[in-house]
Amino acid sequence: MREQNLDFETTIFDKEYITLGGRREAIVRGGRDLFDRLPRAFEGVSQIGVIGWGPQGSAQAQNLRDSLNGAVKVAVGLRAGSRSFEPARAAGFSEEDGTLGEMFEVIAGSDMVLLLISDSAQTDLYEKIFAALRPGTTLGLSHGFLLGYLTDAGKEFPAEVDVVGVCPKGMGASVRALYLQGAEVNGAGINASFAVHQDVTGHATDRALAWSVALGAPYTFQTTLRSEYLSDLTGERAMLLAGVHGLVESLFRRFREQGMSQEEAFRHSAESVTGPISKTISKDGLAGLYQRLDTDGKAVFAQAYSAAYPVGLELTYEIYDEVRSGNEIRSVVLAGKRFGRFPMGKIDQATMWQVGQKVRGNRVESEIPLDPFTAGVFCGVMMAQVDTLLEMGHPYSEIANESVIEAVDSLNPYMHARGVAYMVDNCSTTARLGARKWAARFDYLLTQQSYPAVDLEQETIDTAPFEAFEGHVIHEVLRICAEMRPSVDIFVE
Amino acid sequence: MREQNLDFETTIFDKEYITLGGRREAIVRGGRDLFDRLPRAFEGVSQIGVIGWGPQGSAQAQNLRDSLNGAVKVAVGLRAGSRSFEPARAAGFSEEDGTLGEMFEVIAGSDMVLLLISDSAQTDLYEKIFAALRPGTTLGLSHGFLLGYLTDAGKEFPAEVDVVGVCPKGMGASVRALYLQGAEVNGAGINASFAVHQDVTGHATDRALAWSVALGAPYTFQTTLRSEYLSDLTGERAMLLAGVHGLVESLFRRFREQGMSQEEAFRHSAESVTGPISKTISKDGLAGLYQRLDTDGKAVFAQAYSAAYPVGLELTYEIYDEVRSGNEIRSVVLAGKRFGRFPMGKIDQATMWQVGQKVRGNRVESEIPLDPFTAGVFCGVMMAQVDTLLEMGHPYSEIANESVIEAVDSLNPYMHARGVAYMVDNCSTTARLGARKWAARFDYLLTQQSYPAVDLEQETIDTAPFEAFEGHVIHEVLRICAEMRPSVDIFVE
Repeated sequence: MREQNLDFETTIFDKEYITLGGRREAIVRGGRDLFDRLPRAFEGVSQIGVIGWGPQGSAQAQNLRDSLNGAVKVAVGLRAGSRSFEPARAAGFSEEDGTLGEMFEVIAGSDMVLLLISDSAQTDLYEKIFAALRPGTTLGLSHGFLLGYLTDAGKEFPAEVDVVGVCPKGMGASVRALYLQGAEVNGAGINASFAVHQDVTGHATDRALAWSVALGAPYTFQTTLRSEYLSDLTGERAMLLAGVHGLVESLFRRFREQGMSQEEAFRHSAESVTGPISKTISKDGLAGLYQRLDTDGKAVFAQAYSAAYPVGLELTYEIYDEVRSGNEIRSVVLAGKRFGRFPMGKIDQATMWQVGQKVRGNRVESEIPLDPFTAGVFCGVMMAQVDTLLEMGHPYSEIANESVIEAVDSLNPYMHARGVAYMVDNCSTTARLGARKWAARFDYLLTQQSYPAVDLEQETIDTAPFEAFEGHVIHEVLRICAEMRPSVDIFVE
Repeated sequence: MREQNLDFETTIFDKEYITLGGRREAIVRGGRDLFDRLPRAFEGVSQIGVIGWGPQGSAQAQNLRDSLNGAVKVAVGLRAGSRSFEPARAAGFSEEDGTLGEMFEVIAGSDMVLLLISDSAQTDLYEKIFAALRPGTTLGLSHGFLLGYLTDAGKEFPAEVDVVGVCPKGMGASVRALYLQGAEVNGAGINASFAVHQDVTGHATDRALAWSVALGAPYTFQTTLRSEYLSDLTGERAMLLAGVHGLVESLFRRFREQGMSQEEAFRHSAESVTGPISKTISKDGLAGLYQRLDTDGKAVFAQAYSAAYPVGLELTYEIYDEVRSGNEIRSVVLAGKRFGRFPMGKIDQATMWQVGQKVRGNRVESEIPLDPFTAGVFCGVMMAQVDTLLEMGHPYSEIANESVIEAVDSLNPYMHARGVAYMVDNCSTTARLGARKWAARFDYLLTQQSYPAVDLEQETIDTAPFEAFEGHVIHEVLRICAEMRPSVDIFVE
């Protein structure tokens, strides 16, 4: 993928240009003050059908309904007999007022159809769904997976509909949680990317922007559906889910072998990552985290960073290759066919996560250690993902959100609250599979290569990765991104 | 893949039928007493070109030369400028007598071409190689990888040549080591499968059988190239390399958490697997291993077996799916393109393997513990592979060799001698990549699911897997296979 020159036109929202790493990116800021523009942006749309009640479906349907406040009808469509009818009713959607129904009926009755069923359901049902779309409908996706699947199969979207993407850079639960905080702090929410893949109505851009604003995105940046799925599938398989899981497991084991108690090892690994490390990065970026360390801590950080970065780079490259080749998408489809016999198992039954439950129970937030070795490993792997996506030509907004902001603002707070499974298994099936597949690889490579490099070759360790850290362009990018959203603490029950 | 009805005709060797699990399989026994039939079987072949000097190339070129004893010329072909010219010369091949040369010259001058270069070299060079083959040449492969690659790319072998496979069920080093032992014990060697994919000369079957007999295979069984690569790639990614690596790492950690010293934990995990467990299975099969345990040991074994089997089954199925879909082959090709920037790293630098080196140094062979928990996990994962391949319709000989015999007779002795890297990294690049990719998955799933099942749900553990163990058909299959080869101990320097 080459670096792309993206831009868009809107007469309804206020497009701004921001400069990130020397490149100009066109964006739209969100905020509740824009909700009164939504009806105009959705002109010609009398019903938005939200199909599916997974993490994204349930969050988005509620945010849209609340933001539109009756100006456009929001109807939820589900498989006939789905167990999700119950929670959808509890959230205020109902068959009586036509805001809840069988999915193909809702699709046929909607001018804008947000297809938020699982990726495997999309690949199973897409032909029937495409057939149910009326010409001129705007088909919305929150993920480019279906494009990847169709491309691999040599197929295309129907020619007579718009195809747009609005892709929140956070799990569904946080899309709803931060939206609710937005009632107090205007602009709180999860950033989103948007993409216009087909525009037959001439309204595709404004409808997509309106969808994103209505979800509560503090800012919306542009991408393509292909760029989105490449970075999204890579991100969750690398730093966001698998990477962070594998690295805290490997660190827990390392600290145990060094003689820490189970509780201390958990505090210095998982707790340190989801507590002070993530929170500091959220407020002050990666550079701010490094600055918080004392002189000795900085030296430990630098070495851990330099040792972890090459492993992060090697694996993120491999993952990107596997995503780009279509292998990951095919794997997800194959896994879906095995679920009947081999459902996904629990990932938090091992000793470490049992210990974690105890540690969380006795947690004093202010006493969680900011372990400099853990911080160095975390930032090294994270920066390796940043550099991989940069080399592959992704927009800075996409890179910063997909590698850093989503981790510290959306995902890690869930691990902080209830452990690794609560983070991973609240994500999509595609993400849950990817997290299971790749976490162990990060663990093994860090254990086989990074830690021995620190322990055995301290004198000869290649320090080039850390030397590139302080002057890295991502620090400025994160600072500008941070200015575009209010600082809120995500609170997870 | 459906179960296949395979059979073949030979006028030169003695075909026998054996009955395995109620199915008849046609095989040929090997032995040094058959070497005088080789010239007749190779009639029309004045030169056999062995292309490549990797683990298989170097072993096979030497075995063929020694077995043929001048009756047919064996010439080694290498890339111009290859560093392998040196070791090939040291092994007695030389430019002067025309038994060593540039690969395309050797190909053009040979009537039978054994293509034993790496899989990635095969996929890079196959067009040029095919062009260099004279019509009527017998092209030999020791692995069906190239067929998988061609199938995926929608291509075929050239129509005017024979295509046969002879695939030793062991790493190259053991193909040579056991052949040398064959001078003392007639029939010592590594079993091989053979396949005739194209037969334009009418001599393909006899040439393939002669190749296998000349390598020293105690017995040669029939398969297809596709069946071969499906089972071979699956086997090395599952039980043979990745499975055994992941399971001993997970057991080492488990024993450490239970309070064993590092040395004891290594002895009860890796040493137990490569010592008494592998050696007992080699002589007395899986049933014999179980019978060696006392009453308490049997109970521990049964529980560990029942807990590990479902994890082995889930992962072996996933691996089989990934191989069959072409994903694994594409991954290997993609990894090959990354080697310039990301060469494969060492896998034995972590603490466990440093401890292992010490333990091996002080080893008293007779004092290595036969840990019943370790034995149960090992056999559970192994049997899961057996059952997967059985369900996929593979011949019993292929299943027994690819799941059990290759592990205990060829591979584990290398880990016993010098650790995990010595076993894995003496295999093909394809196998080394697969071992790196999947070992961590076995480790994680055993740790996340099997061990908690034993520790937390002892009362409710599903014992169905172990209940199927004692009456399993594989025990009889292994007994018959064992009768067809002399019992030799592989001795690894």
